[in-house]
Amino acid sequence: MARIELTVDDIHELVSNVLLANGCDNANANAVARTVAAAERDGAESHGLFRVPGYVAALRSGRVRGNAQPRVEQKTAAFVHVDADQGFAPLALERGIPTLAESARSLGVALMTVTHSFHFAALWPEVEALADQQLAGIACVNYAAVMAPHGGQKAIFGTNPLAFAWPRPDRNPVVADMATSATARGELMLAKRAGRQVPPGNGLGPDGQPSTDPAAILEGVQLPFGGHKGSAIALLVELLAAAATGDSFSDELNDEVRDGGPPRGGEFVLALSPELLAGSESTRRSEAYLERFAAIPGVRLPGSRRHANRANTGPRSVDARLVEKIRSLG
Amino acid sequence: MARIELTVDDIHELVSNVLLANGCDNANANAVARTVAAAERDGAESHGLFRVPGYVAALRSGRVRGNAQPRVEQKTAAFVHVDADQGFAPLALERGIPTLAESARSLGVALMTVTHSFHFAALWPEVEALADQQLAGIACVNYAAVMAPHGGQKAIFGTNPLAFAWPRPDRNPVVADMATSATARGELMLAKRAGRQVPPGNGLGPDGQPSTDPAAILEGVQLPFGGHKGSAIALLVELLAAAATGDSFSDELNDEVRDGGPPRGGEFVLALSPELLAGSESTRRSEAYLERFAAIPGVRLPGSRRHANRANTGPRSVDARLVEKIRSLG
Repeated sequence: MARIELTVDDIHELVSNVLLANGCDNANANAVARTVAAAERDGAESHGLFRVPGYVAALRSGRVRGNAQPRVEQKTAAFVHVDADQGFAPLALERGIPTLAESARSLGVALMTVTHSFHFAALWPEVEALADQQLAGIACVNYAAVMAPHGGQKAIFGTNPLAFAWPRPDRNPVVADMATSATARGELMLAKRAGRQVPPGNGLGPDGQPSTDPAAILEGVQLPFGGHKGSAIALLVELLAAAATGDSFSDELNDEVRDGGPPRGGEFVLALSPELLAGSESTRRSEAYLERFAAIPGVRLPGSRRHANRANTGPRSVDARLVEKIRSLG
Repeated sequence: MARIELTVDDIHELVSNVLLANGCDNANANAVARTVAAAERDGAESHGLFRVPGYVAALRSGRVRGNAQPRVEQKTAAFVHVDADQGFAPLALERGIPTLAESARSLGVALMTVTHSFHFAALWPEVEALADQQLAGIACVNYAAVMAPHGGQKAIFGTNPLAFAWPRPDRNPVVADMATSATARGELMLAKRAGRQVPPGNGLGPDGQPSTDPAAILEGVQLPFGGHKGSAIALLVELLAAAATGDSFSDELNDEVRDGGPPRGGEFVLALSPELLAGSESTRRSEAYLERFAAIPGVRLPGSRRHANRANTGPRSVDARLVEKIRSLG
């Protein structure tokens, strides 16, 4: 696979330009481009340029509004709602987070729900944005149904990712971001393309039987990580992302997504102020705990690999054919 | 193992009497007895009478105050703190939940932290108490360090349980309550007593090597469910239960627990009002989703087994020797 080198700024410009050429206004194009460039910067390729053709397809099919004007409404002192106006999630999140952060700073806890948004990125950008303000963040979204609950054969969950960030003074935050499926869907696609089998436990074929063939699982259903416990967490994500936001459940979304872009849905973002809740002495003890944690041989704090990649200020090596394809969409 | 039959009221009285005889006042004895009787009522034996000798031991060693007076303080409009005054958790929770619920009903979201409490029960009683008021609840506690993070050999987590409840109009709520360890510690103890091996992935022996011998794992470390993803969730539980409450981290607790009773620590309880956040139309759609979920062959909504047991109004079959032992402590 041929690679070329692009700076993070080049990546931002490439994405922004192709989105502008496909009907995005400046605000929306730049918000998505920041998300894509941040993913490539951090070595999180599966949420970087790889997603851009899908973003463009969703604009071209008319499902997503490129000039969406997200509306932020403070519903109660602790609850902010953002109507994303049928746009991509990044602008809605950027517009809502300052209000969410201010509420959490003054009350200790606050919630933001986002509806009518198209989320196609990782979740760490939004929880890290909170951690940058010394707030803890927990976020989740659901997705078109591709995953069965533990014990079942019918898809009723998305891959339902869950992320959290915990702030650390003068350090990168702890940041975890995981699908609640045993494997990310992109991994199955890559395994299928490479003709590789996947380990048992990842999914069922269209016949409802356990399979290690990624092609069969993609036609059948994925399974949650961690058996019935992971399945319960996938259900919690579903309830937070749909029932607490008022947006769609995963199995209400399946007919919508035909263009390769993101499904429309809700997002749940909780913010906490550890400083207000527990005081600065507690922050000092948390730091000591996280240092003991990171000192255990064989163990890394979640997010540390991405943050190490981020420290590299040089150009990024990206898939040349993908870049060419994206340019051709401009 | 000889069994005898006791009504749920008999169980309550048995527990209440033995706690009163060991220094609890009425309020504390009854709050703990309600928790124990509810566990036996629901068929959750591992959190029922089985725990009573540990409760008594912690009173006798002087670690736990039987006449604790939990103090509820509304710190902000969205944040309630309960200082449990070195008492068992049930009374602190019962005292704090009305304020938490009222805050969540008026703001959509609210948080309660509990500190200086001794938690020795399941978490479903507190989240179900919220669901009974049509609120969603999420709760977690940490515990003396017995579990290593994924990839490591050193205990830095408790079995760190996480629970949630989601309300349903005129129905039992959805309620999940799980340790983030691959197996509950009690299961390992039972397997050890029975001379059974446990499946791979449950823990490491004192030599740091994977083991299927429960005795070796109990001397070594348990492991999280679901590999690195479950490990990240165990870390989130640790941060919520300790860093967000200001109470102890799991690995700060190990020297404390020598009497077989519960460790002292914090609890994190979040409450949400789906009705305020998303409206009643959303509740109707959630109900439809949960019905589709429960209709999948082979799948049960979390909590349904306990709720089915609860419907039985007859006496409960309990371990006769355990009852005798508890009576002897009175």
